Amino acid sequence: MAPPNEQIVLLTDGAASLLAAKTATSILRYRGENVVGVLDRSRAGQTTNQAFGVGGDTPIIASLSDAPDATTLTIGIAPPGGRVPDEWRPILIEAAQRGMKLVSGLHDFLCDDEEIAAAAKASGAVIHDVRRNRERDLAKAVGVRDDCLRILTVGQDCSIGKMLTALELTKGLKDRGVDAKFIATGQTGIMIEGDGCPVDCVVSDFVNGAVEKQILANQHHEVLVVEGQATISHPAYSCVSAGLLHGSTPHGMVMVYEVGRENVHGVDHVPLQPLPKLIAAYETLAALRMPSKVIAIAMNSRNVSEEEAAVERERVRAELGLPVADPLRHGVGELVDAIEALRAEVIAPAEAAQ
Amino acid sequence: MAPPNEQIVLLTDGAASLLAAKTATSILRYRGENVVGVLDRSRAGQTTNQAFGVGGDTPIIASLSDAPDATTLTIGIAPPGGRVPDEWRPILIEAAQRGMKLVSGLHDFLCDDEEIAAAAKASGAVIHDVRRNRERDLAKAVGVRDDCLRILTVGQDCSIGKMLTALELTKGLKDRGVDAKFIATGQTGIMIEGDGCPVDCVVSDFVNGAVEKQILANQHHEVLVVEGQATISHPAYSCVSAGLLHGSTPHGMVMVYEVGRENVHGVDHVPLQPLPKLIAAYETLAALRMPSKVIAIAMNSRNVSEEEAAVERERVRAELGLPVADPLRHGVGELVDAIEALRAEVIAPAEAAQ
Repeated sequence: MAPPNEQIVLLTDGAASLLAAKTATSILRYRGENVVGVLDRSRAGQTTNQAFGVGGDTPIIASLSDAPDATTLTIGIAPPGGRVPDEWRPILIEAAQRGMKLVSGLHDFLCDDEEIAAAAKASGAVIHDVRRNRERDLAKAVGVRDDCLRILTVGQDCSIGKMLTALELTKGLKDRGVDAKFIATGQTGIMIEGDGCPVDCVVSDFVNGAVEKQILANQHHEVLVVEGQATISHPAYSCVSAGLLHGSTPHGMVMVYEVGRENVHGVDHVPLQPLPKLIAAYETLAALRMPSKVIAIAMNSRNVSEEEAAVERERVRAELGLPVADPLRHGVGELVDAIEALRAEVIAPAEAAQ
Repeated sequence: MAPPNEQIVLLTDGAASLLAAKTATSILRYRGENVVGVLDRSRAGQTTNQAFGVGGDTPIIASLSDAPDATTLTIGIAPPGGRVPDEWRPILIEAAQRGMKLVSGLHDFLCDDEEIAAAAKASGAVIHDVRRNRERDLAKAVGVRDDCLRILTVGQDCSIGKMLTALELTKGLKDRGVDAKFIATGQTGIMIEGDGCPVDCVVSDFVNGAVEKQILANQHHEVLVVEGQATISHPAYSCVSAGLLHGSTPHGMVMVYEVGRENVHGVDHVPLQPLPKLIAAYETLAALRMPSKVIAIAMNSRNVSEEEAAVERERVRAELGLPVADPLRHGVGELVDAIEALRAEVIAPAEAAQ
């Protein structure tokens, strides 16, 4: 788990939109108690709730000097190209000079930046490049404990709610007394959970193995809810999604989609695949390693009204014959019911047979 | 293309089997005119044909001093764990001291070995770590020229003949006057062709993009024959295979299998998927980006007799309704026919419509 006593400042300076500040909004939602401020010069003076719709009265500040007790500076947006913008450099160096921990999920590592690394070395500041890894284990398909249920969130696109759904499902299971664990597979998930593997930055030969290692290390839990990445139909990222699917060998999948989204985020000329076709493809690919079904649909309805969401929910329930819910709007009760039913089906008989 | 004047010594010292010396045997087969010797102390005195079944009278030597004019030392086997065995170190350092080029496809890079790197620096020797890359381009699905046909070799397993099939198909097309290009995606293919991308060592987020980049750079050719990697059903490597499939968006696929192989190479407790199921899965996954069919079967019949291969060929032809041939035993004529037929179907109409 993540350190409980951190005092985090999130850096979102220059974020064009709420979607671009996905890391910041997720940390506000799931580790908000550790966030003392958001550094964003264009929004300074507002609360995070006013600017990003989450985080309550957490202040947005214009300078690190406004947060003298902060222990950690976490980069909260993904800048274009994954590189550190020049206007951040004085802020990052100031934090390093103060001895603050620097946390970054960028593909370019802060520890490779000579000036920032030198400032950190001088003060003893820790640099945590979340995506940095030396994963070199090949998957061995050694088999996981029979009584450990694996659920993978999959999706129609990137940036659609797979991490959020996995976190909410984990919480929903825990609320019912199930020993569930969230398996983080991306930089934001790792910042929230405190462990996991940044699969999109692992050398491709070792992706399946890195995921299998996470599963084996956590197989003492009753249910593992694995954070999905991208989608197997994504023009750029299908490699990541396929390795994650086969490395985690899920018993069941929860499919996430967004109401109204029609094209691939960032590759706008490519249409999304229809859900029935995508679900069939996921089940076909999964079955090459282990049979697995999509057991529920998580709907992201942030861009439509309460009424429109209700109509859409009924439409998709009827079309796919599966439970459907927006985790933030409707709660995850129906989706957790589907996981519990699957668990009774695939785990309980094995235990009874012993 | 690869430099024509190289004088290569292949290092296979310690290779347990022919299969383990896959890089060496492939370079002997496709760049044999550049190989002046194979350094392998346990087999010294034999010819490569006696030891490995390829390369004719190329001598196997016990020391670099037996090849005084050699310009290049190429590591010809994949040692367990991808690391440099201790008994190779004196040989590699001697080559570096002599100013020879060192070529390695290992996951561990020679340039990161302080002693070897220092010896190379002192003599001016070049180190070429074929798997070393900084691929950072995301696939953009920008579209390839309409008149450039892409064929991908896919397979039932690793180390089964996908590279060999792609090389033979390229040669077969060229022999018919087609402007075909082999797109290398693995270390041995790159050593043979002189360009390409080592996809299994690219960070997973950038695999699709690295492959797309190879396609775009070569789309002026009439046919691109892309070297496949692993299989989408492989427990450890499916990540690589999926990214390669979607990055190359092939019009057609040629499926490679080996007669008699039943389990995954190196993960022996996992059975291979039956060809019909695997073909259907490949076509389903490919279609998420672009419709594609398996149009022919390349049979690897190295472990059976001429007669058994003939019976098996008829059996698979009947079962799958596709052309079947062992490229080394039967030639690739039937398989090239299938590619030409596909090209007439998908390319010619587009040209006629202009």
